[in-house]
Amino acid sequence: MKDQVHAAARRARIAAATLALTTRADKDAALHAMADALVAGTPAILEANAVDVETARSAGTGENVIDRLRLDADRVGAFAQGLRDIAGLPDPVGEVVRGSTLPNGLRMQQIRVPMGVIGMIYEGRPNVTADAAAICLKAGSAVLLRGSSSAARSNAAIIDIMRDAVAGTGLPADVIQQIPADDRSSATHLMQARGLVDLVIPRGGAGLIRAVVEESTVPVIETGVGNCHVYVDADADLDMALDIVLNAKTHRTSVCNAAESLLVHQAVADSFVPRVVEALQGAGVTVHGDAAFCGVDADVVPATDDDYAAEYLSLDISARVVESIDEAIAHIRRFSSGHTEAIVTSSLAASTRFTSGVDSAAVMVNASTRFTDGGELGFGAEIGISTQKLHARGPMGLTEMTTTTYVVTGDGHIR
Amino acid sequence: MKDQVHAAARRARIAAATLALTTRADKDAALHAMADALVAGTPAILEANAVDVETARSAGTGENVIDRLRLDADRVGAFAQGLRDIAGLPDPVGEVVRGSTLPNGLRMQQIRVPMGVIGMIYEGRPNVTADAAAICLKAGSAVLLRGSSSAARSNAAIIDIMRDAVAGTGLPADVIQQIPADDRSSATHLMQARGLVDLVIPRGGAGLIRAVVEESTVPVIETGVGNCHVYVDADADLDMALDIVLNAKTHRTSVCNAAESLLVHQAVADSFVPRVVEALQGAGVTVHGDAAFCGVDADVVPATDDDYAAEYLSLDISARVVESIDEAIAHIRRFSSGHTEAIVTSSLAASTRFTSGVDSAAVMVNASTRFTDGGELGFGAEIGISTQKLHARGPMGLTEMTTTTYVVTGDGHIR
Repeated sequence: MKDQVHAAARRARIAAATLALTTRADKDAALHAMADALVAGTPAILEANAVDVETARSAGTGENVIDRLRLDADRVGAFAQGLRDIAGLPDPVGEVVRGSTLPNGLRMQQIRVPMGVIGMIYEGRPNVTADAAAICLKAGSAVLLRGSSSAARSNAAIIDIMRDAVAGTGLPADVIQQIPADDRSSATHLMQARGLVDLVIPRGGAGLIRAVVEESTVPVIETGVGNCHVYVDADADLDMALDIVLNAKTHRTSVCNAAESLLVHQAVADSFVPRVVEALQGAGVTVHGDAAFCGVDADVVPATDDDYAAEYLSLDISARVVESIDEAIAHIRRFSSGHTEAIVTSSLAASTRFTSGVDSAAVMVNASTRFTDGGELGFGAEIGISTQKLHARGPMGLTEMTTTTYVVTGDGHIR
Repeated sequence: MKDQVHAAARRARIAAATLALTTRADKDAALHAMADALVAGTPAILEANAVDVETARSAGTGENVIDRLRLDADRVGAFAQGLRDIAGLPDPVGEVVRGSTLPNGLRMQQIRVPMGVIGMIYEGRPNVTADAAAICLKAGSAVLLRGSSSAARSNAAIIDIMRDAVAGTGLPADVIQQIPADDRSSATHLMQARGLVDLVIPRGGAGLIRAVVEESTVPVIETGVGNCHVYVDADADLDMALDIVLNAKTHRTSVCNAAESLLVHQAVADSFVPRVVEALQGAGVTVHGDAAFCGVDADVVPATDDDYAAEYLSLDISARVVESIDEAIAHIRRFSSGHTEAIVTSSLAASTRFTSGVDSAAVMVNASTRFTDGGELGFGAEIGISTQKLHARGPMGLTEMTTTTYVVTGDGHIR
């Protein structure tokens, strides 16, 4: 398996060298060809998907997981539209990030260049397959796609169609390759293909991400675990706070930018805690609270530190009353996964203190945590949300899939 | 030892939270106080250094290593001047990297913020101790300094003086801490203090860097291994080429931006190879060459693939004649460590092909590889030269020691 993964990575490196020299026009043409081919190939994709779904069902997989796995013509159409949208975005490659003429006459430019070969290790939804291939191609990098075994046939169908379309436009098909998913070791070999793979991005649950971070020798961008907080300040508009808490918790529970924890300043606890508990319970949410929360309703479950640390991804929320904004910041610094925190306040001082005091990829002021999303922020494409501080933090689009090089031009300059 | 390292990291996190809210003026005052204290404390530093030097000598350490370890008043004065120079640089923290108002009225800003806690694992020279502490402090991060055991007493003296000076200006001394070097495990615990340390930077030989990359679970920026090439093109000015080759190889041999390999286009081989071999040998350089190089002088040693892969850091160079610029690029892609490559050419087409074809942190056109240096490129301070593609590539200054956060401000926005 190691030989197979390394051979794929070597082919990817060769293909990437060609792709690095490909113009935006040619890359966009390939993306449109891929989109057209996905639409035309919908029957083959759905046929492969039906086998994956049937296999999952026979194995007793839960309906919510099967729902994420299942494709239909609309979903495949959405993949294709996603590819066309990416074709419409500016090409990050070639951007001059900075440049100057040095005192000795040397002309220095820092230029954005492709990453090279990117490995994606992911679970679940086959949409990641099309998205990641398109984002990497547009950013000038080859991609090695290692999805889950449960979606292996769907992914294979999607990848075969995209490869044929790429080859049909004259680019090397090996800019997009599938890494076999039938053996866990293929993921390990991919993340340890140091010197052959430039970057590995894991997308999936906390267990997958931790395994990649711990075992990879290739640089990794960690994505997506979101224990997101909403803090309702002493100076909050409580109607706004209620709307934001409900939206952040219940708009979609299975996503990383959903709220998992609620902190309420004691100055507004008496008026706000009963309201928010009633509203959350009315929306089907189980509240795991401290003594103040437990005191207002018998259905509030006493919260433990495990609750405060949890990314529920379900209709559950942990909740606590804090004595001050600094206590809220300290709580978040202790328990947060560094994804997104929100403050609801009318106070400029509180907003400033909160945004500079917490240490997360995104901070929302009077807005739902759900806005930490590449599409919502106008980036146009998103390959994941980074919760680490290195390279990229927050939603990652095309720019984050590139690196830079310094080009220094002289006239025989020596030291 | 694990408890000790983790306790230091926890103290660093607390100190970093304070430092993140400290103004530039207060950080610069601390840097000037550190500089003054290092000058005033020179006798204590030299006394500690003398013990380190004596211990190294008793252990039979080579004179070149001892020379790097040895301090005198001038060297300490240079540390202090370095700190004052860093105080004079702009503060990267708070810079708005991008910002816009979204269609729904949300105001989005991407703001530069401190990394948090940075671990430095390094060998040799005690100057890294003062430099790294100052760069991290200015960039708003606490630093955990894990130097080599051979410099432990010198480093301790420097760190004690800097901590006292920092505390004297009202900032927490724990923004600068020494990690004990008497036990290899302290470095391992530092690079595995995930969640407590945000970034680890190894500086030293290839063995140290490989060990950190393989064992660390904290994100790493790899620095410094430089197998740098000079390619003399068919259209090169051969006098310029000779100057650049000699400068890149011999100006300073022990540094990562020294040239280690020479590639010559066959069109100029007959005239250039004999000249460059004579000049290099005249400068004391051993040439390890292919058949074309061996043919011009009996003292040229036949080169193996190990030679082409070697970072000699000595008066040795590998050399080869290539049939084309594409063969030169392919050779570099195969053997380079991705640090710096140079082309000597008068051809615009060759220059463009080379700069977009090689895949390294820096590419020099008609200039010596020795210019890949933060000071030379005008960055004002350098904590190392990154040879990886993630986060930072090439010389790293203050900006590269920061991350960013998205601050999104609304008026009750929900999805």
